Amino acid sequence: MMPLAINQATTRPQWTLKEAIAGYAKAGVRGIGVWPDKLRECGLAEAKRRLAESGLVVSSYAGGELFVKRDGAVQPDDVAHRLVDEAAEIKADCLVCVVGGLPAGSRDIAGARMRARDRLAALLPRARAAGVPLAIEPVHPMRAADVSCINTLDAALDLCDALGTGVGVAVDAYHVWWDPALSAAIARAKGRIVSFQLCDWLAEMRALMDDRGMPGDGIIDLSALTKQVQAAGFTGLPEIEIMSARDWWKRDPNEAVRICVQRFAAIRSS
Amino acid sequence: MMPLAINQATTRPQWTLKEAIAGYAKAGVRGIGVWPDKLRECGLAEAKRRLAESGLVVSSYAGGELFVKRDGAVQPDDVAHRLVDEAAEIKADCLVCVVGGLPAGSRDIAGARMRARDRLAALLPRARAAGVPLAIEPVHPMRAADVSCINTLDAALDLCDALGTGVGVAVDAYHVWWDPALSAAIARAKGRIVSFQLCDWLAEMRALMDDRGMPGDGIIDLSALTKQVQAAGFTGLPEIEIMSARDWWKRDPNEAVRICVQRFAAIRSS
Repeated sequence: MMPLAINQATTRPQWTLKEAIAGYAKAGVRGIGVWPDKLRECGLAEAKRRLAESGLVVSSYAGGELFVKRDGAVQPDDVAHRLVDEAAEIKADCLVCVVGGLPAGSRDIAGARMRARDRLAALLPRARAAGVPLAIEPVHPMRAADVSCINTLDAALDLCDALGTGVGVAVDAYHVWWDPALSAAIARAKGRIVSFQLCDWLAEMRALMDDRGMPGDGIIDLSALTKQVQAAGFTGLPEIEIMSARDWWKRDPNEAVRICVQRFAAIRSS
Repeated sequence: MMPLAINQATTRPQWTLKEAIAGYAKAGVRGIGVWPDKLRECGLAEAKRRLAESGLVVSSYAGGELFVKRDGAVQPDDVAHRLVDEAAEIKADCLVCVVGGLPAGSRDIAGARMRARDRLAALLPRARAAGVPLAIEPVHPMRAADVSCINTLDAALDLCDALGTGVGVAVDAYHVWWDPALSAAIARAKGRIVSFQLCDWLAEMRALMDDRGMPGDGIIDLSALTKQVQAAGFTGLPEIEIMSARDWWKRDPNEAVRICVQRFAAIRSS
């Protein structure tokens, strides 16, 4: 089996969680990244049963809009609490924390960053008690306003330094590849990378959302990045996550997953 | 008169250079940012005559695709040479250097950055001799692949440190607003900011290209940024530059310029 996970965002429009579990297991990968809407649609008990039967590891549980929604509405605490509890139930390797951008009407990104830190600090005791590592995901600066105000790996590591144990980082190639400080930041992250996600950045990218590329089809040196992340002590399952409205979401999901596996094999051996 | 310039990209589809010179002067601003295609369409002699008659300062001359074109083709040296010479002819305060992204087929952004540094070093003697300051513009990381591999103000300042006199930076709010290191980088840039461009980042931004907002319509704290840039010794004309395919490019350009002036007055007084 390939030491690889597929994030179910890769087959979002095509497959339910049950179908994704079956499809990924059949393709010979070892893990799955799970999304809350898909988990809730399936039902927790059924999902746990299917996951156990499949033998798949849950490499990540996706915590988007954690503290602020895309429309700028501030989330109540129970949104994040529920995500931690669900991540524990499905034994996820981590809860990926995409903290949210600016509250509606705000022009204060520094303030948004301080509030994200405070809310992560408040969430942390529950996550530690549940045994769920928090993985702070730096998100590409083009989504600083609406998806996350944490936009560099160094900024995420500064938060880890401030917050203590139980918090690490999620390194997603798509979000961090451009950063001139990336190599140094990955070295700084030693022992604290709890999620590693791969996709490619297409030279001909057309849309701000959901236009990610299959590894190998773009301009990121994913082989070098994978080596750097492993040298920084990452021992989890690399996870391919491709949101692709114009291409992969329109294809047969079995084909998409098969090609993910092929491309990851090429990355590993290069 | 308002201590402000308008970059002619703001009225790109509506006005020729001659029309922009007349329209901006009539609106009571002091400067204009000029684009090469518009200058060449007008003709150098005619442009110089109109600029002199108008009394407008040329706050910047736009040097895009300086070393690598958007399609990844590497530019010959004479492209940058001609831009320096034209900037000198129209007495521009600076040549804004947007160096280009990755050459076609490359996955080596570190290499692209080294080549940009080397080509700037090679261009610098001609720029110094012509009396044209080079303004290295850090470009938003979402355009790292195709517009510029220089993506943070600190990266631009590192280049300035390496290159010596005759080189500064262009601070464009749109490109740098998200950077957690921005305040420190602006302070570091003291005395080296040779161009300052303003527009806004729309919370509801829809497109990767040409979807910039009128100052005041988005989420950047332009008042605080302007104060920081001035505290760092910038004494040139702030320049409003709004590429807006869905809104301002469809309006009466006289209205767009009038509102630019109003919004800048509000930024200055807040």
